[in-house]
Amino acid sequence: MDNFTFYSPTKFVFGSNTESQCGSLVKEFGGTKVLIVYGGGSVVRSGLLDKIKQSLSASSINYSELGGIVPNPKDDKVYEGIDICRNEKVDFVLAVGGGSAIDTAKAIAAGVPYDGDFWDFFSGKASVQKALPVATVLTIAAAGSEGSGNTVITKVDGMLKRGAGSDCLRPVFSILNPQLTVTLPAYQTACGAADIMAHVFERYFTNTRDVEITDRLCEAVLLTMINEVPKVIKHPDNYQARANIMWAGMVAHNNTVGVGRSHDWNSHGIEHELSALYDCAHGAGLAVIMPAWMTYVKNHDIMRFAQAAVRIWGCEMDFQNPENTAIEGITRFKNFLSSIGLPVTFKELGAKEEDIPLLVKNFGIGNGKTGGFVPLGKDDIEAIYRLAL
Amino acid sequence: MDNFTFYSPTKFVFGSNTESQCGSLVKEFGGTKVLIVYGGGSVVRSGLLDKIKQSLSASSINYSELGGIVPNPKDDKVYEGIDICRNEKVDFVLAVGGGSAIDTAKAIAAGVPYDGDFWDFFSGKASVQKALPVATVLTIAAAGSEGSGNTVITKVDGMLKRGAGSDCLRPVFSILNPQLTVTLPAYQTACGAADIMAHVFERYFTNTRDVEITDRLCEAVLLTMINEVPKVIKHPDNYQARANIMWAGMVAHNNTVGVGRSHDWNSHGIEHELSALYDCAHGAGLAVIMPAWMTYVKNHDIMRFAQAAVRIWGCEMDFQNPENTAIEGITRFKNFLSSIGLPVTFKELGAKEEDIPLLVKNFGIGNGKTGGFVPLGKDDIEAIYRLAL
Repeated sequence: MDNFTFYSPTKFVFGSNTESQCGSLVKEFGGTKVLIVYGGGSVVRSGLLDKIKQSLSASSINYSELGGIVPNPKDDKVYEGIDICRNEKVDFVLAVGGGSAIDTAKAIAAGVPYDGDFWDFFSGKASVQKALPVATVLTIAAAGSEGSGNTVITKVDGMLKRGAGSDCLRPVFSILNPQLTVTLPAYQTACGAADIMAHVFERYFTNTRDVEITDRLCEAVLLTMINEVPKVIKHPDNYQARANIMWAGMVAHNNTVGVGRSHDWNSHGIEHELSALYDCAHGAGLAVIMPAWMTYVKNHDIMRFAQAAVRIWGCEMDFQNPENTAIEGITRFKNFLSSIGLPVTFKELGAKEEDIPLLVKNFGIGNGKTGGFVPLGKDDIEAIYRLAL
Repeated sequence: MDNFTFYSPTKFVFGSNTESQCGSLVKEFGGTKVLIVYGGGSVVRSGLLDKIKQSLSASSINYSELGGIVPNPKDDKVYEGIDICRNEKVDFVLAVGGGSAIDTAKAIAAGVPYDGDFWDFFSGKASVQKALPVATVLTIAAAGSEGSGNTVITKVDGMLKRGAGSDCLRPVFSILNPQLTVTLPAYQTACGAADIMAHVFERYFTNTRDVEITDRLCEAVLLTMINEVPKVIKHPDNYQARANIMWAGMVAHNNTVGVGRSHDWNSHGIEHELSALYDCAHGAGLAVIMPAWMTYVKNHDIMRFAQAAVRIWGCEMDFQNPENTAIEGITRFKNFLSSIGLPVTFKELGAKEEDIPLLVKNFGIGNGKTGGFVPLGKDDIEAIYRLAL
């Protein structure tokens, strides 16, 4: 196990009707003027936005609004939000929605006290040192952004999708009401599930030895997803299964399951180029990429893939030929993704073989290599895209 | 799953040599004058206390000291610590040691700003509303106090062992260096392991339905303990196994594995009377009580015990007679505790059958009942003690 620091100071308020505590929580964490960041659509139609405003007003909290955040959120809304905060002396950013609203809120929170262009944090030119406090009211289990210090934004100019992170971007509180997710269509639910599972797998495939505790915690989250996701695909209004998935989504990404071990975020990176180019759901792109990535890198540590197959997918261990077990685990993962309605090939996603050179170029490593479980060069990236055809 | 709030704001700094960061961490969290609370013995002999003092001095932090904390820590040292803090204007309490030093530090931190007798928090007369910041440098994986808001203190007058808790008693930081635990004798290591496993089991046996995520997380910690503890009993200097156990001990008790479900703390309560009366190690007392408690209550939910047996202890499910599986799981737990050198009977612990009436009386429920998985009256408590003979 490697040395690590684990710091997850977010206050999580979980369960039915918890959104009514929003105003008092903002007050508890010192907010006086809030920017509410949201997408639109269901947050407005369902009456959730009105409830949040009422809760803020009941605690005498003033607010401004920034609606219209889209999936794979863009930098233009971040600039708009930063301007509002500066002009209206906002001291607290509240996201109401999923990963897109939350990530936009975080980027705004980091940008407000920063003298330069907020994109510096995403291009690697600067690191986030301070930020306005951020909080969330979550409406989809997926990105895990409600418990993480990370944000992913797409720069419209070039459609570059990049991430940034800092402990000061961890939400001060996050409200998780599973009831808010029961109206989600099956496809979006499944995309969220793929994202959650990917967050665990990116931590699970590690080169760090002697990590039994985090191996087991990773497996715990994945076993939960395998058990609970089919239930909500069949019965979207199953509150209890929604609750298990929603909390699993948080645990998957606040690093509870990933401390003290090297990670591999290449599947996320390889996928980001798909969702940047095609504007597909991130989770759908991951469903296409992750099994291909696993197939490509499995020989690096066949016993780790065999462990995943046995402990997560319930495969019988083939002691004579562990590779068979490893392959069977990947196959079951792919079948699981298909069974919950996700695409697992370029074709099913609507991605095009002829775009592969552009995807590889956009990945932007030139002649270098990525880090991770297996360092990958541009030829490897191309091979993984081709395995996903 | 029940509604819940999860708030674990402690900054955990984990790994070798991390104690050298102590001074800078106290500074980061605003401490200027520290009370160092410790036991004595190995903390002094190993040079750890000197290292901590050097680290504080290097960050220009002043300190006072309160040594001599004993296992099953007593109220007298808490009063002494409160006096020192008030007289010397201490604004930060730093525990160096295990659960006893940490719990004493927490009780002091709660007592300093409180007008009345600090015991009010333990007798149930008052709840902790504010406290000095507490931090820890952990030297044994056991109590989980490094990540929890709980403290257990024994009142010398009557030898009453009682607990108190508050989010404001959660340490602001905790330094966990597994290297500090490699010199622990096998018996103390095993006692710590029993405490950690008990913290999980007390959460695992629940009446709340649909708690797949926390069930799986509980099982993850227990599987880790079953895998790692025998390694350190055999090879005490196995850093990696120590590291896995140390982090498992934190996860077991900061409520990561227990949110959204009812708990059962009766085994802890029943044990507390043993360690209060005989001054035995808490973990040793738990090793005696937990299997007896499980045997006594198992019929309340035989399938939950069967689940534990299958998922945690690797038993084959007896589909024709699940009770056999449940019993086999309890037997394997008891055998495991024996195999790591712990007592599992009154006799092995040195407890006496003739003291049972006194133990039951000290438990102090009169004609009432405890809460938990199965509410217990005084006759039940007595029966459990007798099952442990």
